[in-house]
Formats: sequence, C-alpha cells, structure tokens
Amino acid sequence: MPEWPESIKLLIAALMRLPGVGRRSAERMALFLVESEPEIARGLAAAIERARTAVRACERCGSLTEDSPCVFCTDPRRDDSLLCVVERPKDVLSLERSGSYRGRYHVLGGRLSPLEGVEVEDLRIQELERRLREEPVQEVILALGTDVEGEATSHYLAKRLARPGLRITRIAHGLPAGTGLEYADELTLGHALQGRREIT
Amino acid sequence: MPEWPESIKLLIAALMRLPGVGRRSAERMALFLVESEPEIARGLAAAIERARTAVRACERCGSLTEDSPCVFCTDPRRDDSLLCVVERPKDVLSLERSGSYRGRYHVLGGRLSPLEGVEVEDLRIQELERRLREEPVQEVILALGTDVEGEATSHYLAKRLARPGLRITRIAHGLPAGTGLEYADELTLGHALQGRREIT
Repeated sequence: MPEWPESIKLLIAALMRLPGVGRRSAERMALFLVESEPEIARGLAAAIERARTAVRACERCGSLTEDSPCVFCTDPRRDDSLLCVVERPKDVLSLERSGSYRGRYHVLGGRLSPLEGVEVEDLRIQELERRLREEPVQEVILALGTDVEGEATSHYLAKRLARPGLRITRIAHGLPAGTGLEYADELTLGHALQGRREIT
Repeated sequence: MPEWPESIKLLIAALMRLPGVGRRSAERMALFLVESEPEIARGLAAAIERARTAVRACERCGSLTEDSPCVFCTDPRRDDSLLCVVERPKDVLSLERSGSYRGRYHVLGGRLSPLEGVEVEDLRIQELERRLREEPVQEVILALGTDVEGEATSHYLAKRLARPGLRITRIAHGLPAGTGLEYADELTLGHALQGRREIT
C-alpha cells in the first residue's frame, strides 16, 4: 500500500489530535506545511512551543495567563465582592466580551461528569472554598453550562458553598438574543417561562 | 477589549494560516494545545519541524519524499515507458491508492492560472521535457484536474510535448463510480457521452 513518507505520517497523526481535525483535514494541513514557505511551518512550530512555555493557569482564578496572578485577579478596579464561577478558561473571555461583568472569576476546570470520570476532587472546588474564606466575596455567580452535567454541578456547588451572608446565584437561562420561539427547544422555553420578569 | 495572552494570540494567528482553519477553530486548537498535556503540543511542534526538515521534492519527479530520487522513480519494477503527469504531490498518492498504475510520475507543481499568476515557467515543464529526452517514455498520461484551468493546461501540454513516436493521452472524464445520472452536472454528462465505449 503506497504511503506518505514517515515524517509526513507522523505529522498527520499529530495534527489529528487537534480538536475537530479528521484524517482528511490533517493530510491537507500536513501537505500545506511541507509544501509552503519554510517560515510558515517553522513559525507555527515556534508559536506552539512559545505558547506552551509562556502560558500557565493563574494560581488564583485558574484562567490562562502569562503572568500569575492574572490581570483579572490583580486589576484594582474590579469588584471583589462578586465571584463568577465558570467551567473553562475560554468562558472568562466570553463573559468579558459581553462587557457586562466587572467582578472576579474562578475557573473550575470542567464540570462533574461521572461518565467521563470527572469527580469532585478533579475540579478546583477546594481552591474556591479557600477564596470564599480569604476574599470579601458577597455573591457567587454560577455561570456553568446548561446541559445536564452543568446543571448538576451548579446544584452541587450551590449546596456545598452555602454559608450565612453569601448570596449564590446563577446566570439566567432563557431565549438567546435575536431568535424566534420556533427555534427554541422545550427545555429552553420552560426555563424562559420560569425566569420571566416584570417589564418595568 | 479583553484579549488572550500575547503568545496565545500569536498561536491563533499561526494556526489560521493552515488551510480550512478559521478564527474559531484556531482558537479551539490553541486552547487545546495550551491546556492539554505538554507532550501533545511539544509533539506537534516537533513533528512539524521534523517533516519540514526531512521532506523534500524528489529531484526527478517532484513528489514529496525523504530520499531523492523517490521510491516511485527508483523502483525497478515500475514501467519506464509510461509517464503520468499530475498537478500536486498528493495526486500521486491518489493514483497509487487506485492500484491501477505502475508507471512513473511527474508532478507539475500546479496548473496554468493567469488569474493566480501561475505562468508556464512556474511549472516543472522544462524538467518534463528533459525527462522525455532522457528516459524511454512512450506514453505521457495527463492526469490534471477537470476544471477550466486544468483543461487548458492539458491542452497546452499536449501541444507542447507532441513529438514523433510519443503517445499523449489523458485520463477519462465521465461519471464517478457509485453515483446516479441525476447527480452529475451537464459538463460531466457531456464528457461521459463523448467518451462512451463499446461494452465487450
């Protein structure tokens, strides 16, 4: 059976580990990398090395940063009384881009998932409890996913973190912006109805 | 505006140069690379470096290889009288996988494309003519793309390479295997009709 040269086969295998990349796209990428200007391939290899070396998890909130503690933890203009809990580092950026939040963050590193073997001790929950002891947090805002596992994790956290003087909320579930009722599933519509508010 | 750390931004930009990778997939890949085991990112960087260093174009046929001349040029069991001309190195592997060809190859490096600025001198045509002088080729099989530019290149080559005693053919255009007439466009059906053969 005819095959690619060994080093191209290894490159295809390495590219296939990337999310969303199957054999055909990995082959296309590998050929592009060996056929294009050497600077393009070398530049990508160097960028991977550099990012992998420079980027770490913030020791306090767990978001991705080159300097720990990160800018979200050290910015004195942010509100210390609000702590927003998210699953992944990228969620921090999504919330920041919404422009609607100026408190602190805490990245859990995932959500409880018995099927995938993610247990309580795999998430940064102890770190979260330590922050609640040490920082002047008055409200924990749970901003986890709205699938079954995200919901279960939210309920677990709400119960575990409950203490006098601490408000625990979660972000609203409902109809996404710019869409019609006909595109929403029943669960979303149920949440949207339950979460209805007076128009003022 | 909130942003990724500098080294992640650079990695996203480098990934976006890969074919078929837009901003969102580049972001997903970059996060995967900085969040997963260091060995995965380092392995990919090393595989890129290694392939870029080890792989070259075969000095004779232009296909991708680690040893030049390549295995297709040096295999003594292949038929020296047949020379198949293709656009890109990957076309060699496609033909090999069909299992229907045992001659030699010549990779042009593309096709004539005035719009993209690909001229006659950008393709490996002089190298092809040299091989026709030096090797015992009796038939040149043109296996270029069937779009307008591939067709134009085929016709240009057929005219330029014509010499006494040399047969110049092109691979058949027609209905792909396993499909019905209703899925074929008019041009393909036209080619299929023109290329009809007796059933023996």
